Amino acid sequence: MSSANKHAFEAKPARLVARIPIADIHPSVDGGKFVAKGFVGEIMPFSAQVFREGHDSCGAEIVLTSPSGATTRLRMRQGAPGSDRWHNEILLTEQGLYAFEIESFADDFQTWHHNAEIKIKAGIDVQLMIAEGAVLFDRGLKEAQADSTKSDSKKKHLQVLVDAFSAGKASPEELLAMASDKSVHATLWHNPIKSLVGSSEKYFIEVERKLAGVGAWYEFFVRSEGAKLDKAGEIVSGNFKTATKRLAAVADMGFDVLYLPPVHPIGIAFRKGPNNSLNAGPKDVGSPWAIGNSAGGHDTINPELGTQKDFEAFVKAANKLGLEIAMDLALQAAPDHPWVKEHPEWFTTRADGSIAYAENPPKKYQDIYPINFDNDPAGIEAEVLRVVRHWISCGVRIFRVDNPHTKPVVFWQTLIAKARETNPEIVFLAEAFTRPAMMHELGKVGFQQSYTYFAWRNSKPELESYLLELAYSSAEFFRPNLWPSTPDILTEYLQNGGKAGSKIRAAIAAMAAPLWGMYAGYELIETVPRPGVEEHIDSEKYEIKIRDWAAAEKDVTSIATYIGKLNQIRKTHQALGQLRNIEFHRTDDESVLAFSKWLPAQHSADDLDDRIIVIANLDPHRTRETTLHLRMDALGFAWNTKFAVKDLISGNVFDFSEHNFVRLDPSLEPVHILQVVKIHD
Amino acid sequence: MSSANKHAFEAKPARLVARIPIADIHPSVDGGKFVAKGFVGEIMPFSAQVFREGHDSCGAEIVLTSPSGATTRLRMRQGAPGSDRWHNEILLTEQGLYAFEIESFADDFQTWHHNAEIKIKAGIDVQLMIAEGAVLFDRGLKEAQADSTKSDSKKKHLQVLVDAFSAGKASPEELLAMASDKSVHATLWHNPIKSLVGSSEKYFIEVERKLAGVGAWYEFFVRSEGAKLDKAGEIVSGNFKTATKRLAAVADMGFDVLYLPPVHPIGIAFRKGPNNSLNAGPKDVGSPWAIGNSAGGHDTINPELGTQKDFEAFVKAANKLGLEIAMDLALQAAPDHPWVKEHPEWFTTRADGSIAYAENPPKKYQDIYPINFDNDPAGIEAEVLRVVRHWISCGVRIFRVDNPHTKPVVFWQTLIAKARETNPEIVFLAEAFTRPAMMHELGKVGFQQSYTYFAWRNSKPELESYLLELAYSSAEFFRPNLWPSTPDILTEYLQNGGKAGSKIRAAIAAMAAPLWGMYAGYELIETVPRPGVEEHIDSEKYEIKIRDWAAAEKDVTSIATYIGKLNQIRKTHQALGQLRNIEFHRTDDESVLAFSKWLPAQHSADDLDDRIIVIANLDPHRTRETTLHLRMDALGFAWNTKFAVKDLISGNVFDFSEHNFVRLDPSLEPVHILQVVKIHD
Repeated sequence: MSSANKHAFEAKPARLVARIPIADIHPSVDGGKFVAKGFVGEIMPFSAQVFREGHDSCGAEIVLTSPSGATTRLRMRQGAPGSDRWHNEILLTEQGLYAFEIESFADDFQTWHHNAEIKIKAGIDVQLMIAEGAVLFDRGLKEAQADSTKSDSKKKHLQVLVDAFSAGKASPEELLAMASDKSVHATLWHNPIKSLVGSSEKYFIEVERKLAGVGAWYEFFVRSEGAKLDKAGEIVSGNFKTATKRLAAVADMGFDVLYLPPVHPIGIAFRKGPNNSLNAGPKDVGSPWAIGNSAGGHDTINPELGTQKDFEAFVKAANKLGLEIAMDLALQAAPDHPWVKEHPEWFTTRADGSIAYAENPPKKYQDIYPINFDNDPAGIEAEVLRVVRHWISCGVRIFRVDNPHTKPVVFWQTLIAKARETNPEIVFLAEAFTRPAMMHELGKVGFQQSYTYFAWRNSKPELESYLLELAYSSAEFFRPNLWPSTPDILTEYLQNGGKAGSKIRAAIAAMAAPLWGMYAGYELIETVPRPGVEEHIDSEKYEIKIRDWAAAEKDVTSIATYIGKLNQIRKTHQALGQLRNIEFHRTDDESVLAFSKWLPAQHSADDLDDRIIVIANLDPHRTRETTLHLRMDALGFAWNTKFAVKDLISGNVFDFSEHNFVRLDPSLEPVHILQVVKIHD
Repeated sequence: MSSANKHAFEAKPARLVARIPIADIHPSVDGGKFVAKGFVGEIMPFSAQVFREGHDSCGAEIVLTSPSGATTRLRMRQGAPGSDRWHNEILLTEQGLYAFEIESFADDFQTWHHNAEIKIKAGIDVQLMIAEGAVLFDRGLKEAQADSTKSDSKKKHLQVLVDAFSAGKASPEELLAMASDKSVHATLWHNPIKSLVGSSEKYFIEVERKLAGVGAWYEFFVRSEGAKLDKAGEIVSGNFKTATKRLAAVADMGFDVLYLPPVHPIGIAFRKGPNNSLNAGPKDVGSPWAIGNSAGGHDTINPELGTQKDFEAFVKAANKLGLEIAMDLALQAAPDHPWVKEHPEWFTTRADGSIAYAENPPKKYQDIYPINFDNDPAGIEAEVLRVVRHWISCGVRIFRVDNPHTKPVVFWQTLIAKARETNPEIVFLAEAFTRPAMMHELGKVGFQQSYTYFAWRNSKPELESYLLELAYSSAEFFRPNLWPSTPDILTEYLQNGGKAGSKIRAAIAAMAAPLWGMYAGYELIETVPRPGVEEHIDSEKYEIKIRDWAAAEKDVTSIATYIGKLNQIRKTHQALGQLRNIEFHRTDDESVLAFSKWLPAQHSADDLDDRIIVIANLDPHRTRETTLHLRMDALGFAWNTKFAVKDLISGNVFDFSEHNFVRLDPSLEPVHILQVVKIHD
């Protein structure tokens, strides 16, 4: 029986439910096991099931405490009939840890008013209802007077009601009319007369800076930017100095973050050649993800790209243009990485004394030594933390983490928590392309952003269901950064889609989520694959790419201007800075996708509604004509509203209502991005 | 900043994930906020997402501690590809609080074997793989030897491998073959060589006695049983003595529980007459749910039914026949209930000094005073606990709670917990017909059983989706008791379905869930409604019903024998004693419902598979012919299996395979209940 006794000491759940129960509270992750995510400027939806016995009215309030200790108390609105679900939204404005609970209560005024209205009109218990109203208002007034936080408006309204109900002069109908006044109801909605007050457990929201949640990313290889052929026809590598010259163009296209693949010394042993070939020639530059050689490792700048000072100057130049630098954090080593000699315990030593290289039998990846995180977890964590802090000291605040799903999840949980202790502003993007359980867990333990399956979701039903999943089901712990392609991923859709295909995918990524990114060359429609795989031919991972950006600017195939417009629209329209407001609309064509984003006036910086409607022809080869059926309520419109929209790409203006003819010719513009500019009377 | 400091002391979730993460663990309710439900004899499905970085193998085990302290450790099987979900089931055998955690680990033998098999066959790293095998087996053997709980089989197998791998005599291929032996794999599956072991939080399962989870219920009004007309044509009420004579027939029909509507004195003031009329005549017996008069209240037997002693004798007589008595717990008072005078504080006093009766304005229910649970919660709780314990002392162990959703949820949470402290065997059935949030919450806070929406789910898609919801989505906290009708509920389906309709609904209820119930008169197809409502005409709630059971026995419309067969089948077939094993099968007719229940041999008391296939024609008026397409894997069969089934209703035997013709004539038998009796070679 010792174990049975032991049970008695265990934390068997025993919390009593609130007097008016509160269930299924959101935002929350795994019932509160992890902290939910938010960002400064995010309109956070809160919801809970709140319900009570019998017929009397109940209510619910969000009680939110900000990191600086400010408390917001907000009444929730009732949701779908029968759901017992209550909702409201709060704009998050401070960086740091918020806490909230949901409070439930009986709304004694609503209960009384509901009954009084029926009974006084029916002539039942008339005097009794007036007498009970007098008691209620008297109690409400006394409670309000005793509480200095209660609104003056509440006291004023209640005083008037108390006086009228006790004076005995007005008729019951007149008294009921006074109590039915709209401003009385509004005041007593926001400041209810409560009883049976209860409270939920406390939940937490980690609110990060805006760039953790909203941003447009651009990726380039430093060695490609400014690379050229010398007179002998040999490639001269770009470097931080030449790449600096490209920053203005990236900023002009409206990007917020410039992500650099690793800029550290590249391993020489077993270096990979062009197109991932096994044997590199003497001039081959290798994959920057094979990190480390005699010049140094993860804390070192590749001398071929410049010096530490060049790097710092590059970061400053970028920042001046409003660009933040994201660095790659790729935790693996080339065989000639200094760690291999200095810390063989950070790798796996095999039975024959050799250090284990990466493999997926029978394939071998001899250019890479994976780190063994279990031999000396504290040592590795301290070293990685040192590396991260080193780059932080150089002005880096964003890390794009390479293959985090091949390292222990608990390593990231600890590393991110410790790094945030001193630098709560830093952002980690998880480059995990793997099964959902792992991708989700990485978000839960702290990654601020995650790559997604977006590149492989190209049909209308795929996009609708996946974007809904990202915006609603997983948004509390998984913040999606949508990339149409990467140096590793070139989907068939882009291979075959031509210029229209690239525009379609960029427009959807940029409009559907507050975070999106693209890789240099995307604007030039570089979509030729290495045969048989979903990768670029002559991948920039293994060689230097010389691009003539000046010539490209004049090239009609370039979509740089289009990309610039997308980012400009994102910056101008607050509705696009939210993840959780996407709503899909029906069209009669299986290739025409339609969604909208609405930011209601009360959350808007300029007190105006911001409404964007995106209609995309997903077929890059054929014109589609169809009817768009708008769910008008999703735009905050009555069903018969007529309004004007302006296409922010073409400048055309159209009159819209519930049902609308649309025609999208991919050779002209495959995507309408419409702003609601006027509501007709 | 004081609030910000306060944050630091709050329970911000900070638990590190396991080295190999473990997520979404089941059974669990709201992430562990409530205890999950089980019953003695239930095969409990456990599952969790377990996944790791990289390609190496991982595993998971359930570690379950029973109330008496016995620990079961069971390896989980991998579920659907890509789901990272692991499963297994354990038969629960003890009443009381179980605790469990999920353990995750690296399976070092599987990892080695997977790599060795590929590499040795490909001639890569052959000696190295053998050397690493030797190291692994040596470590495994030493760990097993140091742990007295490890199986001898594991030590034996490992000793053989250690000897062979270190002797250097056998070829690598021979050594690999030894390590690939089936019994080696089976032993090292159940007793793995582990590393990176981690553990989840602890979860709890409240395991109740079998009758909490499995039982057939019958309901009768004591006053109707043995009631008759006297010579003057006046009704003479039945009582406990006359009702005792009916017990044998109820037991013969195979019921386990006999539920009695309230047997307490019935209020006289504002008593309701037949068909819920407002004014009762002097001879009207009133609704037994209007409890209390000068003779007593909830702790008193209605003198018209007999004495306290008569009641106790009735309980004993029922128990002797294998029937348990369920009493009604209806917490409300008639105006003449003793509580009203003795404890006016337990009711709501209105502004005019009167006690509030029940109302839903403008409707008044003056025969009922609702209890106000907030004026004196401790006093009411003590009194109700006293009442419950009084009836427990008379041999009652089951309470059917009337309208629990009109009382505070927290009252039930506390009451049930306190009652269980002294009597863990008691069972409460929640009669809450209301919205899902409330019905679910009542299950979560402790009700052992719940009424459901079953009566209103009559079409095939409704039944499929609802029965799946009950068996899977909500089973961890909501244990459904399926009733085709009650004294309050007579659906259109039953009104119009005739004898076949009543058979269909009883058969589905009795076969689909381990708990079902019916009300006296159901077997006589008493399906005439009060016009315009889903209720019986001349409802037994308000009057005494005289039934001639002896005559009914000979009546061809009676389905008493059919009911008896259903209950007999339930008792004989263990597969029907489980909730979580229902599987639906496709038929080509929209009115033919098919489901099966399979209890695999390893969980069976007689080591035989128990397989029941139910095929119901939901159309009570027309014969249906269609093809049944069996999901053979849901029966534990290979897809090409051929087998014989016996219809347990008709006795007919059929040959079955994946696709089967079925014909159901409702005028003969509307439902096949098939037992798999033989598997053909």
